[in-house]
Amino acid sequence: MSRVEEKLKMLDLILPAAKPPVGNYTGCKTTGNLLYASGRVSEQRGRVGTDVTIEDARKAAHDTVLLILAIIKNEIKDLGLLKGVLKLQGFILCEDDFFDLPKVLDGASDLLISLFGENGRHARTATGVAQLPFNATLQLDIIFELE
Amino acid sequence: MSRVEEKLKMLDLILPAAKPPVGNYTGCKTTGNLLYASGRVSEQRGRVGTDVTIEDARKAAHDTVLLILAIIKNEIKDLGLLKGVLKLQGFILCEDDFFDLPKVLDGASDLLISLFGENGRHARTATGVAQLPFNATLQLDIIFELE
Amino acid sequence: MSRVEEKLKMLDLILPAAKPPVGNYTGCKTTGNLLYASGRVSEQRGRVGTDVTIEDARKAAHDTVLLILAIIKNEIKDLGLLKGVLKLQGFILCEDDFFDLPKVLDGASDLLISLFGENGRHARTATGVAQLPFNATLQLDIIFELE
Repeated sequence: MSRVEEKLKMLDLILPAAKPPVGNYTGCKTTGNLLYASGRVSEQRGRVGTDVTIEDARKAAHDTVLLILAIIKNEIKDLGLLKGVLKLQGFILCEDDFFDLPKVLDGASDLLISLFGENGRHARTATGVAQLPFNATLQLDIIFELE
Repeated sequence: MSRVEEKLKMLDLILPAAKPPVGNYTGCKTTGNLLYASGRVSEQRGRVGTDVTIEDARKAAHDTVLLILAIIKNEIKDLGLLKGVLKLQGFILCEDDFFDLPKVLDGASDLLISLFGENGRHARTATGVAQLPFNATLQLDIIFELE
Repeated sequence: MSRVEEKLKMLDLILPAAKPPVGNYTGCKTTGNLLYASGRVSEQRGRVGTDVTIEDARKAAHDTVLLILAIIKNEIKDLGLLKGVLKLQGFILCEDDFFDLPKVLDGASDLLISLFGENGRHARTATGVAQLPFNATLQLDIIFELE
């Protein structure tokens, strides 16, 4: 079992079923030691700060990492090939005056660092957006480092 | 003639004239086996779902890939240096309640896969936005893999 | 002293104090010859075209590059490790009918090219957005090339 999966087990987390892409693209694509994961929206719907609390949005960020890992596992089979995390780009559905984007994305970052340790530390960009597909609360786009 | 250009010919597609960047940047930049193409907006104007049909937006995504390839050819001269596609990020001008982003971006993805075969398969992120330069229907940002 | 810092001195520019990330992420992350810098918003606030002039926004783009270099220096210690610039993604807070995004981002691109010479030339994507954290005028996300 890969380190990531052992860690998931310790945290009592289970990868959800991998959802296939809904268009003509792949769940992830690799070259050299880079793995580009396709952007994933959260299953949580609604706008942070109005429909959705910060705590729920944070949980949505956490859960979306699991969705992405499930897709990667489905495609590359072995999560042990992932060494760490390079970059996380988060798009968050919120009002103009909502500035707590970092608190929301920490839900994803904290989990990535738990799973990958020091190698899980990553660069990050947070962008508030006026709309997201399916009225999703957020969308995450991650570049992983391969062994 | 490169494989990509043979394929374009078979599909009866002609690369448009390369438009120079409108600011102090390059059409693309390479390092190792990565080629970052600068973001390009479509020539199609207007918002998908209101001013522009899904079919027209899909065509706009297709045509914007040709604009990007024309710029790359102008800079690196030989499209045969491109091995495949790693990541496509699409920004689409649409209303909050427009969720068919994947159908629109498939216009770009289908063409990339036709041109590059299996190597053309790529990770993808779709983001609906409230505005784009020149009221363009969409903007594509692509990372290619070099031979 | 690194070439970049010599150049900063010649231009009479001083790196500001590095601000630590406000969430659980790093200021930058490297792999191979890639350095992903975390997205940074400008200290300038307000919407371009209404609250903020193009000239002030251009200055904000310039100054945000300095903020990013300060953070990188704080993390990797030696700016001489940076060889050049691969990709600049800019998000600019503006109205739907503001199309001068390139003029604004040239404030960042011009400085990067002054500092890194030919290696500073980069691919670029400009996206107008309806909102940014803290009502910041813009946000820059840069991928640098390492020696």
